[in-house]
Amino acid sequence: MKFLKNVWYVAALPDQVGRELLGRKIAGVHVLLYRTQAGEAVAIADTCPHRFAPLNKGSLIGDNVECLYHGLQFSPAGRCVRNPQADLISPNMHIGRYPVVERHGLVWLWPGDERLADPAKIPDLSHIENSPTRRTVHSFIEAPYRHDILIDNLMDLTHIDFLHVGSFSGGPPESGETVVEERDNQVIVTRTQYRGAPPPRDADMGPLVDRRFHIRWFPSQVTAFEGRMVLPGGSLDQGRKTVFTHIATPADAKNTNYFMSFTREHAVEDRDLDAIISATQKKVIATEDGPMLEAIDRRMNGADLMELRPVVLPGDTGALRVRRVVKRLLQEEERHQAASEVRSA
Amino acid sequence: MKFLKNVWYVAALPDQVGRELLGRKIAGVHVLLYRTQAGEAVAIADTCPHRFAPLNKGSLIGDNVECLYHGLQFSPAGRCVRNPQADLISPNMHIGRYPVVERHGLVWLWPGDERLADPAKIPDLSHIENSPTRRTVHSFIEAPYRHDILIDNLMDLTHIDFLHVGSFSGGPPESGETVVEERDNQVIVTRTQYRGAPPPRDADMGPLVDRRFHIRWFPSQVTAFEGRMVLPGGSLDQGRKTVFTHIATPADAKNTNYFMSFTREHAVEDRDLDAIISATQKKVIATEDGPMLEAIDRRMNGADLMELRPVVLPGDTGALRVRRVVKRLLQEEERHQAASEVRSA
Amino acid sequence: MKFLKNVWYVAALPDQVGRELLGRKIAGVHVLLYRTQAGEAVAIADTCPHRFAPLNKGSLIGDNVECLYHGLQFSPAGRCVRNPQADLISPNMHIGRYPVVERHGLVWLWPGDERLADPAKIPDLSHIENSPTRRTVHSFIEAPYRHDILIDNLMDLTHIDFLHVGSFSGGPPESGETVVEERDNQVIVTRTQYRGAPPPRDADMGPLVDRRFHIRWFPSQVTAFEGRMVLPGGSLDQGRKTVFTHIATPADAKNTNYFMSFTREHAVEDRDLDAIISATQKKVIATEDGPMLEAIDRRMNGADLMELRPVVLPGDTGALRVRRVVKRLLQEEERHQAASEVRSA
Ligand code: FES
Ligand code: FES
Ligand code: FES
Repeated sequence: MKFLKNVWYVAALPDQVGRELLGRKIAGVHVLLYRTQAGEAVAIADTCPHRFAPLNKGSLIGDNVECLYHGLQFSPAGRCVRNPQADLISPNMHIGRYPVVERHGLVWLWPGDERLADPAKIPDLSHIENSPTRRTVHSFIEAPYRHDILIDNLMDLTHIDFLHVGSFSGGPPESGETVVEERDNQVIVTRTQYRGAPPPRDADMGPLVDRRFHIRWFPSQVTAFEGRMVLPGGSLDQGRKTVFTHIATPADAKNTNYFMSFTREHAVEDRDLDAIISATQKKVIATEDGPMLEAIDRRMNGADLMELRPVVLPGDTGALRVRRVVKRLLQEEERHQAASEVRSA
Repeated sequence: MKFLKNVWYVAALPDQVGRELLGRKIAGVHVLLYRTQAGEAVAIADTCPHRFAPLNKGSLIGDNVECLYHGLQFSPAGRCVRNPQADLISPNMHIGRYPVVERHGLVWLWPGDERLADPAKIPDLSHIENSPTRRTVHSFIEAPYRHDILIDNLMDLTHIDFLHVGSFSGGPPESGETVVEERDNQVIVTRTQYRGAPPPRDADMGPLVDRRFHIRWFPSQVTAFEGRMVLPGGSLDQGRKTVFTHIATPADAKNTNYFMSFTREHAVEDRDLDAIISATQKKVIATEDGPMLEAIDRRMNGADLMELRPVVLPGDTGALRVRRVVKRLLQEEERHQAASEVRSA
Repeated sequence: MKFLKNVWYVAALPDQVGRELLGRKIAGVHVLLYRTQAGEAVAIADTCPHRFAPLNKGSLIGDNVECLYHGLQFSPAGRCVRNPQADLISPNMHIGRYPVVERHGLVWLWPGDERLADPAKIPDLSHIENSPTRRTVHSFIEAPYRHDILIDNLMDLTHIDFLHVGSFSGGPPESGETVVEERDNQVIVTRTQYRGAPPPRDADMGPLVDRRFHIRWFPSQVTAFEGRMVLPGGSLDQGRKTVFTHIATPADAKNTNYFMSFTREHAVEDRDLDAIISATQKKVIATEDGPMLEAIDRRMNGADLMELRPVVLPGDTGALRVRRVVKRLLQEEERHQAASEVRSA
C-alpha cells in the first residue's frame, strides 16, 4: 500500500508530545516526536542507523536523543552529535528529520520531501481552534484497520442511519441525497437527509428532522464535518449545528492513527463535559465502527478496493472521488520523485 | 488447498440455524445461514457486495437480511431486494445463495454448482435419525486444524489404541487387521482387533475382547462408524454395538467444522445422559486428538501430505484411498467447470 | 536464514535431559533429547516419519521412544524397532539421530554430518566446570529473537554502559578500546574501559575503576567472558575477576535457545546464592536486553544485517568479524555437502 508522503499529517495531539519520547508510525515511516527544552515539537527518524534500535527507547539529553543501546546521540535536526566510541562522526550517521508544525490545536508532520513542506498547505481547521467561545475535545485511537476503509466510512454518511442507529442516528430518513464537489484537491460532500428521527441526544427536536452534513476531505486524510438539523422543511442553514473532525493518519498498511474531535460553542469551560464527550465518541467508534471496519479489513485481506469490483451506491460518490484524487496525487509524487533523482544524478 | 465443492457438506446442526444470523466458512466460502419465518433453513453469501461487510453482523427483516453497514437487503435467494439509497437494483447487487437441505438431523449445504445439487446425493445417515427407540447426540467444535488430517485420523483407527488408551481404548490388541473397499466414491474400512483390553466403559465385558469397526467415508467428509465388541472368538455380528459419526466439513485451509455424534438405543429419553455423552466426546477430542492434530498441522506447515513422503503403514490404507478418491473427484470438478465455461462463453 | 550445522551446539542443561522427553529446535532441526536407562543423554529426530507427530508427545519404553499417535517405536540410534501394525520394518522408517556429548556441565549436540562429529571440536569451557573451588550457575531462556543479533549484542560490550547502567554497569567510562583477534575460527575481543563508575555490586571499589573483558567466540555460538576490574591505573591482570558464559544456540530464524552461566570461586556451597545469581541474570536479560533485541528483530524484519547497511562503530569490530567467520564456514559446509553428494551419487 502506497501512502501520500508530501502532505501534512496529524501526527499527534499537542499533549502527547513532550519530554517523553513518542514513537509513532506515520505513512509507513517510524518517527520519533518530542519537545525541545524550549518547548518546540520536533520529529526525527525513530530508528538508530547503527543497529536499528528504536530511538524511542532512549532518553533526552537536553535537546538531543541518546540511543539506549550504544549511546549515539542525535539532534532535533537528525544530526548525529555524539559518538561515544570515537570522535569521528560520518555523514551516514545522520538520520531523517521531519518538519513539524503546531496549528489548530494539532501537531502536523510532513513525511515527504522537506523542500515542499510549506505550512500554508496545512488544512485550514481554524474553525475548531479553542477560544473563549469555542471548545474542541480531541481523542486518539490506535485503530487496527487500514486508513482508506476508515476514510470510505467517513465520506459515506449513509452508514450512520444503519450502523449508528441509537447513537448518532435515530434511523434512516425518508429520503436523502449526496452532492460531491472537488476543489483544489479537496473533496466536499454535502449529504442531506429529509424526515428522519433525530439522534437520541436531539430527541427534544421532535419525532422527525431534516439533517445536512458538509464534509470536507483534505489529502492529509482529514475530514471536517459540519452538521445542521432543523424541523422538516425548515432552513438548514439556520439549524442546530454540530462540528466534528475525524482524521485518519495512515500508520502502515494495517493500522491507522485515528484522531477525532468534537467542537462546541456552549459550556466551554466545562471539563466534565469534555470527558463525557471524549468517552462517548471513543465508545461509539470502538463498539460500532471499529468491529465493522476490522471485519471488512479481514475480508479484503490487503486487496485494493477497486480490484475487488465493489457494487457502487450513490453514497459512495465522495469516497470514490477521494480515491481518484489520491491516485492522481500519488502519480504526481512519483513524477516529482523521478525528476528529483534525475536532477541530483 | 482445494476443496470439493460439488458435494453436500454438513454446515450446521439444526438448532444452530434460526432467527439469529449464523456466519460460517464452508470449503473456503463465507456462508450465512438462517431460517425464514416459515422455518426453512436457507444460506446466502456472507459478504455484502457493496463494501464487503460480513452480512452476519446485520439483521433479519422478515425473510430478508439487512446489511448493518449501509442497509442493502438480500432475500433468501441472494437477490438484492432493497437499496435504501436509490430505487435502482442492478444485477451485480445480487449475491450467491446455496442449496440447503435438512436431513438425518443435520443441515446440509451445497457450495458448488447449484444445477448439480441433487438431495439424493446426501449421504444416507438414516441409521442415526432420532426415533422412539433411537437417540443421537450431536456436538460441534471449531477445530483449528486442517480437515484432511482429521479425516486421516478417523480413517485409521489404529490410533485409538495409543492416543485413546484409558478413554476409548483399553490398550493395543494382540493382533488386528484392516480391510478397505471402495464403492460409488465411498471408502469402507473394516478394522478388526483381536484380544485387546476393552475400553473402560465396557470393563464389564472382562479382561479381553475382540472389536470390529465399520467405517464408511463419503466425499462429504462424513465418516459413519459402527463398532461391535464380543468376548474373544465370539461372533462379531452379534456383539455389543456402538454407533457414532464424525464429520469434518472443511472451513478453510487451516480450520475445520467438526461435528460429532453418538447414537444409542437405550435410555432414549434421558436428557442428562445426552449431556454426559456430549461432554465426554468433546473432552476426549479436545484433550487427546486436538493437541496431536494441531501439532501435526504445525509440523506439516500447509504442505500436501504425499509431498512429505510419509511412511505408509497398513492402517493407512483407508485414508490413502480417501485421498485418491478426493483427487479424482477434484479432477472431475475441474473438467466440469471447464466445460461449463466453454458452454457459457 | 542458514545455520552452521557441523558444529557442536549446546542443546540443553544436563538436568533438562532425563526420562521426560524433551523436544527442542536446534539450528532449524526438531530434536528429541532424553536419557537412556543407563543415564546416557541421546538425541533423535523429534518428528515421526509416519504422520509427523512430534515424538516428544510420546513415551519411553525402556530406551526406546513410542510415538503417541500409532505406536511406532524408535531406538536411541533412530532405528524403528517396533511396528505394531506389521512385522515389517523398512529402511524409510528410521529417523535421524544426533551425536550428543556431555562436557563442561553442558549437553552438546551435533546437528550436521555425523562423520565429522569429533568431540575434540567442542569449545573448551573447562574453566567453568564445577569443582571444590568453583561453582557455575546456569540458566536457560527461550528467547524470541534471532541468535545473530544476540551474538552481536554479546560481542559488542560497549552496550553495557548504556543498556545496563544500574545493573551490570555504573555508566560510560571516560575512554575505552576494543581489540579483536581471530584464531582457529575463534574471535577474541578484548574490551578495555578506563575510569568508569563500577557496577553497583562492586561499589565498594570506589567511584572509578578500569575494566577489561576478554570475550572468546566459538562457531558453536558460545561466548566465554572473563572480566577484570581494578582501581584506575592498576594492573588489570590482578584485578577482581568475573567469569560468565553466554550461549546463543539458534532454534530457528526467529528464536534462540539462550543459555547463560556465571562462575564464581567463593561461597561455592551456597545454594541460596546460586538461586540469587540465576534470578538476577535472567531478570537483567529479560528486562534490559530482551525488549531491545525483540524490538530490533521486528525492525529488521528478517533481513540480513549487512544488507541493511548499518553504521559501523569501533565496538562492532568483533561482531563483524564473527559474521565473516560464519560466512566462510557456511561456504565450507556447502562445499563439503556438494562433495558428499558427488561421492555418494
Ligand atoms: S543501535 Fe543505537 S547506538 Fe547502537
Ligand atoms: S457494505 Fe453492505 S450495504 Fe454497504
Ligand atoms: S505418527 Fe507416529 S506412529 Fe503414526
